[in-house]
Amino acid sequence: MVTKSDYLHTPVEHIDVTQFNPVPLVEAMGRTAFTARDLARAADITHRMVADRDCGVILCLAGSLVSAGLKKVFADAVRCNMVDAIVSTGANIVDQDFFEGLGFRHWVGEEKLRSGMFDAELRDLHIDRIYDTLIDEDELRTCDDTTRVIADELEPRPHSSREYIRAMGAYLDKNGCKTPDSIVYEAYRADVPIFCPAFSDCSAGFGLVAHQHARGDGPKLSLDSAKDFYELTQLKIANPTTGLFMVGGGVPKNFAQDVVVAADVLGREVPMHKYAVQVTVADVRDGALSGSTLKEASSWGKVDLAFEQMVYSEATLAVPLLFGYAYHKGAWKARTGRRWNQVLETAAVP
Amino acid sequence: MVTKSDYLHTPVEHIDVTQFNPVPLVEAMGRTAFTARDLARAADITHRMVADRDCGVILCLAGSLVSAGLKKVFADAVRCNMVDAIVSTGANIVDQDFFEGLGFRHWVGEEKLRSGMFDAELRDLHIDRIYDTLIDEDELRTCDDTTRVIADELEPRPHSSREYIRAMGAYLDKNGCKTPDSIVYEAYRADVPIFCPAFSDCSAGFGLVAHQHARGDGPKLSLDSAKDFYELTQLKIANPTTGLFMVGGGVPKNFAQDVVVAADVLGREVPMHKYAVQVTVADVRDGALSGSTLKEASSWGKVDLAFEQMVYSEATLAVPLLFGYAYHKGAWKARTGRRWNQVLETAAVP
Amino acid sequence: MVTKSDYLHTPVEHIDVTQFNPVPLVEAMGRTAFTARDLARAADITHRMVADRDCGVILCLAGSLVSAGLKKVFADAVRCNMVDAIVSTGANIVDQDFFEGLGFRHWVGEEKLRSGMFDAELRDLHIDRIYDTLIDEDELRTCDDTTRVIADELEPRPHSSREYIRAMGAYLDKNGCKTPDSIVYEAYRADVPIFCPAFSDCSAGFGLVAHQHARGDGPKLSLDSAKDFYELTQLKIANPTTGLFMVGGGVPKNFAQDVVVAADVLGREVPMHKYAVQVTVADVRDGALSGSTLKEASSWGKVDLAFEQMVYSEATLAVPLLFGYAYHKGAWKARTGRRWNQVLETAAVP
Amino acid sequence: MVTKSDYLHTPVEHIDVTQFNPVPLVEAMGRTAFTARDLARAADITHRMVADRDCGVILCLAGSLVSAGLKKVFADAVRCNMVDAIVSTGANIVDQDFFEGLGFRHWVGEEKLRSGMFDAELRDLHIDRIYDTLIDEDELRTCDDTTRVIADELEPRPHSSREYIRAMGAYLDKNGCKTPDSIVYEAYRADVPIFCPAFSDCSAGFGLVAHQHARGDGPKLSLDSAKDFYELTQLKIANPTTGLFMVGGGVPKNFAQDVVVAADVLGREVPMHKYAVQVTVADVRDGALSGSTLKEASSWGKVDLAFEQMVYSEATLAVPLLFGYAYHKGAWKARTGRRWNQVLETAAVP
Repeated sequence: MVTKSDYLHTPVEHIDVTQFNPVPLVEAMGRTAFTARDLARAADITHRMVADRDCGVILCLAGSLVSAGLKKVFADAVRCNMVDAIVSTGANIVDQDFFEGLGFRHWVGEEKLRSGMFDAELRDLHIDRIYDTLIDEDELRTCDDTTRVIADELEPRPHSSREYIRAMGAYLDKNGCKTPDSIVYEAYRADVPIFCPAFSDCSAGFGLVAHQHARGDGPKLSLDSAKDFYELTQLKIANPTTGLFMVGGGVPKNFAQDVVVAADVLGREVPMHKYAVQVTVADVRDGALSGSTLKEASSWGKVDLAFEQMVYSEATLAVPLLFGYAYHKGAWKARTGRRWNQVLETAAVP
Repeated sequence: MVTKSDYLHTPVEHIDVTQFNPVPLVEAMGRTAFTARDLARAADITHRMVADRDCGVILCLAGSLVSAGLKKVFADAVRCNMVDAIVSTGANIVDQDFFEGLGFRHWVGEEKLRSGMFDAELRDLHIDRIYDTLIDEDELRTCDDTTRVIADELEPRPHSSREYIRAMGAYLDKNGCKTPDSIVYEAYRADVPIFCPAFSDCSAGFGLVAHQHARGDGPKLSLDSAKDFYELTQLKIANPTTGLFMVGGGVPKNFAQDVVVAADVLGREVPMHKYAVQVTVADVRDGALSGSTLKEASSWGKVDLAFEQMVYSEATLAVPLLFGYAYHKGAWKARTGRRWNQVLETAAVP
Repeated sequence: MVTKSDYLHTPVEHIDVTQFNPVPLVEAMGRTAFTARDLARAADITHRMVADRDCGVILCLAGSLVSAGLKKVFADAVRCNMVDAIVSTGANIVDQDFFEGLGFRHWVGEEKLRSGMFDAELRDLHIDRIYDTLIDEDELRTCDDTTRVIADELEPRPHSSREYIRAMGAYLDKNGCKTPDSIVYEAYRADVPIFCPAFSDCSAGFGLVAHQHARGDGPKLSLDSAKDFYELTQLKIANPTTGLFMVGGGVPKNFAQDVVVAADVLGREVPMHKYAVQVTVADVRDGALSGSTLKEASSWGKVDLAFEQMVYSEATLAVPLLFGYAYHKGAWKARTGRRWNQVLETAAVP
Repeated sequence: MVTKSDYLHTPVEHIDVTQFNPVPLVEAMGRTAFTARDLARAADITHRMVADRDCGVILCLAGSLVSAGLKKVFADAVRCNMVDAIVSTGANIVDQDFFEGLGFRHWVGEEKLRSGMFDAELRDLHIDRIYDTLIDEDELRTCDDTTRVIADELEPRPHSSREYIRAMGAYLDKNGCKTPDSIVYEAYRADVPIFCPAFSDCSAGFGLVAHQHARGDGPKLSLDSAKDFYELTQLKIANPTTGLFMVGGGVPKNFAQDVVVAADVLGREVPMHKYAVQVTVADVRDGALSGSTLKEASSWGKVDLAFEQMVYSEATLAVPLLFGYAYHKGAWKARTGRRWNQVLETAAVP
């Protein structure tokens, strides 16, 4: 009889860009054409935003990036002070990164599973599939439940997702982080705020629903997505020069771009995002935000035109080259982290 | 000198599927191959979910669909009791539909604007661009401001986006809806709940930031995305047979699929979504949710396998054929709206 | 035991655009956005090229279009004098259209076959798969063999693919065309030349290899692709106003666009193609020809800019709407076929 | 006034995979997910086909690869005996590689040119554009003309494209190859046959049209695409174990896969292609050959299932990693070139 262990035997191992120096390769790509040339320009812009002493760097993550082996890239970026804030879909932060922080792993799924022909069997075995990667659903339920425990211990009032995710970092700090490379934990230590503006849309959503259900009509924690937006806008006002490094599109892209307009609504004139890079395979022709060009964003007054670059590639290929480039160029060595969590907690935010 | 009116002269006109009967065309497509055959099968599944007397139909909207001329399709679907709940990105509901409800329009942009070469000029003229469609940014600011007015008048406590959007419908009802076909207004009248789980990520986000800023430390409205999730889960529990019609992927797709698991977390066993259709151009190969197959969702226990179909097409082409098919098949005539807003408001939701 | 008939039971039926009038739908799409608006503009350009009394219309076909149920669309276009020449990949013309002319059919493959999990079984059963469509390989071998018979009967000298395909039409005329709608047969009757510039790349290639092998060192038929190019160039010189309707990209697109330059090489100045429409899902960002814009082609002096339109859609969805539009607009009724085969056979072509 | 030199100032420089060792990076990618894992598997298969002493390696090239800076990758592959035959679109071989062999260059085009807004100006300046790369059209005419000179000097009979391209190599040998890295020249020296089955579809097409026009009714060179197919089939028969490395799809992919069937037509049973890798961004869902899976090819009896891998990436990103991997793994050092041109010229080919 088939059991879980027949499927879950080979863990995904996270790529370590500190071990490979792609600088000569990327520079050579810059003298060619098509995506290779775009990638080289994006690498240069990434390096520039890290090297610019005034620039606050905002990393936007959409898509299943952590389960796909990119966790250490982003954890290292936080550790090296290359990133000052993160805006992400909930899955990367909770279901995948925090999940690994609790000691669980993602598993390599055989190629044939992509066919979809085995999904009924996987369901029976409590195995969830992300394309070619597998998750033990029972472990994921433990993760859901931990998010409920965290919610139970927090003050029963509206929280930004940032506040809640900071409590997740504190949980890992207190209970021991079971993975050497956790984005949530490194961000906690470095006071890097993490925002998940659509936070109920992940493992934490299940925990929060359970929390609210248990509390009934009594005082309970709620998740205020307007507060998320307010907080990120405060950061933009406090640090007007900003750069966006976006993997995928969706809510994180939209949310981070919008703070320029939000500052204006609050009567504060701030410059557009000075640097912007997006890695995506989304097509421009369906008019949706995920694939919309950064030029289009400039018509909205959100992104400046001088240093913007789209890279048309699936993330697992492009991100190691882009971050590997910025890492080995080394501008981060002269950089100090902005510790924006401290800014938000001392500021008179509502 | 170039002025706004040089660009904003031809309004987008919303397509009216009640005027074209695509049933014979779609049926013929079902005997061919590739996307045409898929579309015909998806049309049949759409018809089935409308015809199934037990089924609650959830419409999920991502991408710039309303600005692209699909507003009347969805407003008609609500009017004809073909849809019982809507989960959407904020832009469709607030920036685009409510915006038109206030009397504003979207404009046809010349083909050359897509090049991105005119975006600096558009910015100077306060014109925002969505691929080949234009918006008067000053009018959009009026829309932002109206959302603030609505927030100011609501009780200063955590709201679900549904509660807030219902107040937007009431606003249109009271002040007069300036467009013959508004999704927000028709949903208000039909008690169809609309959820925007990433609600700060749109025009209303600006209004809410302004509201919270003005209130300072005093009592204020907040937007509880966990409550959104809780409410939709309640609906799934109350009405276990469900169908999803999804345009695009992103947060709406994820959110609506997840309620099956959320019900389980609350100790209520509910069946997977019985019907599921998705129209998208997203590619499966980047592993992201937007393009992930509905079979993959079945490994998570979210979507049943018997009646699921992906349609690989840009929405403006496929949606009129799919809804036109379901409209002209006429199963909606025997259908009664579920008036789910009433369910939520009388239920003991927290 | 599984047999062929377990798979081959439901034939693909070709869509009949004369039965559905999409003119109102397409016109309404023209007032919306994104692909729908593009499609409406492309439909208008298609109508214009048919209505322009000076214009020779060249239909370019790449992709498995005939097996997918679009055969009758193109056969009707020839019958209605809407098309004056065809440039195609070999598969559409020989393996699929001529194949059906011999009395064989294509078959609907179950959805699960797309997974690739059954391909070994299909191979054992002598069934070939094109995505979701099936072919009886033994019948295809009969088709291969028929192409050899035709080669055997032709004069042993270099032929253009057009000459050879004309002989295929004559074969159907003599032996009876077993399908009511054959592109090859209708083109034969209407003196519409068909070019397959990469002709060995299909069923006929197998027949020709067998022919050449059997002839050994003796006189034999060869296929002169330079003659193809020379002939199409002669047509452009004889009829300078031209329009291209392209489904897919590849060799047919390149070949047909290039005749403008070829005429120039022969010292004859001819205008660029006046009208050009392309239906494709190819992405522009890989720099390959199939997805390259028609604007790019204008830098090469091949396509004029006034009436060109790309339509980003899988062909089975867009082609029925585009040809249905042009058919029901009815400009073809006033049109006389150019009978270009006669031009080529009386001209002093080498 | 704008002149050619305002646009043509920065040449494309070809990437040199001998200078970067991606083996550790690629191996790490093999433990992640999505495209990175696929790429690592494809790199391993590439290495295996080079290491397999029985295997003849066939390189298939579609898309503008040489102009994009990949010329040296393929020239080095020939020089290192990693490749035994090449099947390509004509543009790569004639317009781009032979063109550079004549001493001309490709030029980096500014990013804004991609918009298509400058194509009329480029046309006036005799500059041709390939997405973000530029060509001096007057130089291209020199290239066209050189192909005519070569045709004039060849025996006036049907030639395979291979024979003709071999004469192009001899021309470079005699007149001096003006670039250090020419695929045509290295293949000539290593007796590696190059086939362009749709040969008139490129610069040589113009030369051949001019040649045939000048010869009028007299004896003239023709290009026999059936002979191409016959020759490649002979090679498959002579060397049954084969591997395909395919960049893009189109005619080269189809042509090379088909030889398995062609051998069968000649009464010779040969195995399917044992190894197959394809790098492409084509989508599977339009049913066209370029994006069709290698599994689908196995239903046709063309490609074996054990060692096949699609890589979903634009070529400039994936090809340097794949060939860099195979180069630095070094299996080519123990490999002897098959010198298949000699096989064909001594064999009793018709």
